[in-house]
Amino acid sequence: VNNPIRVGIVGYGNLGRGVETAIAGQPDLELIGVFTRRDPASVATAGEATPVFPMSDLDRDRDDLDVLVLCGGSRDDLPEQSPALAARYSLVDSYDNHARIPAHFDAVDAAARAAGTTAIISVGWDPGLFSLNRLLGEAILPAGDTYTFWGRGLSQGHSDALRRVPGVAAGVQYTIPSEDAIARVRAGERPELSTRQRHTRECWVVLEDGADPSVVREAIVSMPDYFEPYDTTVHFVTREELDRDHAGMPHGGFVIRSASSSPGVGQVIEYRLELDSNPEFTASVLVAYARAAARLSRAGDHGAKTIFDVAPGLLSPRSPGELRAGLL
Amino acid sequence: VNNPIRVGIVGYGNLGRGVETAIAGQPDLELIGVFTRRDPASVATAGEATPVFPMSDLDRDRDDLDVLVLCGGSRDDLPEQSPALAARYSLVDSYDNHARIPAHFDAVDAAARAAGTTAIISVGWDPGLFSLNRLLGEAILPAGDTYTFWGRGLSQGHSDALRRVPGVAAGVQYTIPSEDAIARVRAGERPELSTRQRHTRECWVVLEDGADPSVVREAIVSMPDYFEPYDTTVHFVTREELDRDHAGMPHGGFVIRSASSSPGVGQVIEYRLELDSNPEFTASVLVAYARAAARLSRAGDHGAKTIFDVAPGLLSPRSPGELRAGLL
Repeated sequence: VNNPIRVGIVGYGNLGRGVETAIAGQPDLELIGVFTRRDPASVATAGEATPVFPMSDLDRDRDDLDVLVLCGGSRDDLPEQSPALAARYSLVDSYDNHARIPAHFDAVDAAARAAGTTAIISVGWDPGLFSLNRLLGEAILPAGDTYTFWGRGLSQGHSDALRRVPGVAAGVQYTIPSEDAIARVRAGERPELSTRQRHTRECWVVLEDGADPSVVREAIVSMPDYFEPYDTTVHFVTREELDRDHAGMPHGGFVIRSASSSPGVGQVIEYRLELDSNPEFTASVLVAYARAAARLSRAGDHGAKTIFDVAPGLLSPRSPGELRAGLL
Repeated sequence: VNNPIRVGIVGYGNLGRGVETAIAGQPDLELIGVFTRRDPASVATAGEATPVFPMSDLDRDRDDLDVLVLCGGSRDDLPEQSPALAARYSLVDSYDNHARIPAHFDAVDAAARAAGTTAIISVGWDPGLFSLNRLLGEAILPAGDTYTFWGRGLSQGHSDALRRVPGVAAGVQYTIPSEDAIARVRAGERPELSTRQRHTRECWVVLEDGADPSVVREAIVSMPDYFEPYDTTVHFVTREELDRDHAGMPHGGFVIRSASSSPGVGQVIEYRLELDSNPEFTASVLVAYARAAARLSRAGDHGAKTIFDVAPGLLSPRSPGELRAGLL
């Protein structure tokens, strides 16, 4: 391929590893390397030939990078990294703190405009593809309701909360959408659903030695915000069972728009994801939008963007003419 | 609303009527009128206040129109109308002859570029939203297969073919996706499916007086291209039953991307429509893209476009900041 898009990965956990794998499956992208705050010699990448550089290497305005994929966390990493790196490089990030997206956008936008780079923020599936479907449903069918359901899937935030409970040695939490609620929404009922009616929560817990299961269970199900508003089931398992049965990171969910185009005429749009690996899928979305960020940057369309600002054709390695002939 | 987008409807059948209804539900769009080849006095619009003009009125470069929504047919109307009108106005059309889309695009593009207008072609759900989902699935998950299923829904083309069979006084045809095929695709099997395995066809027929049902049935099920490649069921009904039970125009379908992000890691994306009224839904999509066409035109981004070229945010009446705060 002529002029491959040269990509750098910033941060190497599950997401960064997924990005490395996703780049290998794209014909027009070239992985330049992983950038890490750890000692590069200590980072074992999935690809044996993947170079690993210290993060500080990015301070010297490397000219062999068209776009960075930021794989850090939304709480501690991205609020700092995205604006700082947008001052030097085009990039994509998966910033997912919904309430703070406007402030994050503004910070990245200022840096990117000043530097002449393009930074697509909050890329993934929610925020990301789910957001796109919320927008499409509302714009096309204004007289309706949008429902988002998550799961069945492993929630990192709730698993972390679970593991902070005294007496919990290890554990994971699954978010489970209510089948009954989904059925009512699909049928066009447009129900008002409480938090408790939308999702249930399922915990798989390894107890610390000597911990009282009934005390631990009560501490979990009564935890404000995280578990109290839901019907929560707690299962106790051995560490072997946890490692054997709950090591994956499946996730998914639904965005459903239920609307009327005229009185009595129902229209239902449903978008559904069923993911064996949440981080690998998020990585795949990031990589497609990295292609778009590099193209927008080359075209001189700078500043911060979201999935709402990116024409879908920019995500594909195929030319506009090929897309019209083959996919329209 | 300041500066509403002023819209004209070209052609007034089921689709044009749906566009009239959809515009009424949008806060920032103003319907200027319907343009028809018929005698305007003979056209009864759904809205009593909707002006009706002769088509020839469009020849005089009206300055009160920001965008036209073309509601004619792909066989006889749009190949002529879209390039001719793009030479004077920005517009959207629902051209759906997949094989000829590249030629249609080129003709419209030449006219629009010369005139400084913006024309979004092939808007609707297939081509349209289904195309968008085919593109997204392939771009994000390159190692996979995309499946499109249509129905359960009324097919105009197949209903027309059915009505041309000698002995058929009236009738409709429903396209029905195979539940078994969908289940296999959803499960990540990635099956190879023959035409016969993907869809079945169901016909509801009113016989002409004296017609032999077994002869009519055989003529239908053996019709090349339309029915022979499918398992087709023919039901005979009275005209009263047909009018009572089969007057609606429901449709819908599925686009499913079944893929692997790495060996053994399955990822499934499903997009599903369940439409009480195919023309009203297509009209709703056209109207959202009419908004985008008017905005692109104002921004100086001229020429022919498809759904692949339009940033999703342009479809919404809400500002980019509102979209980021409310939907991302």
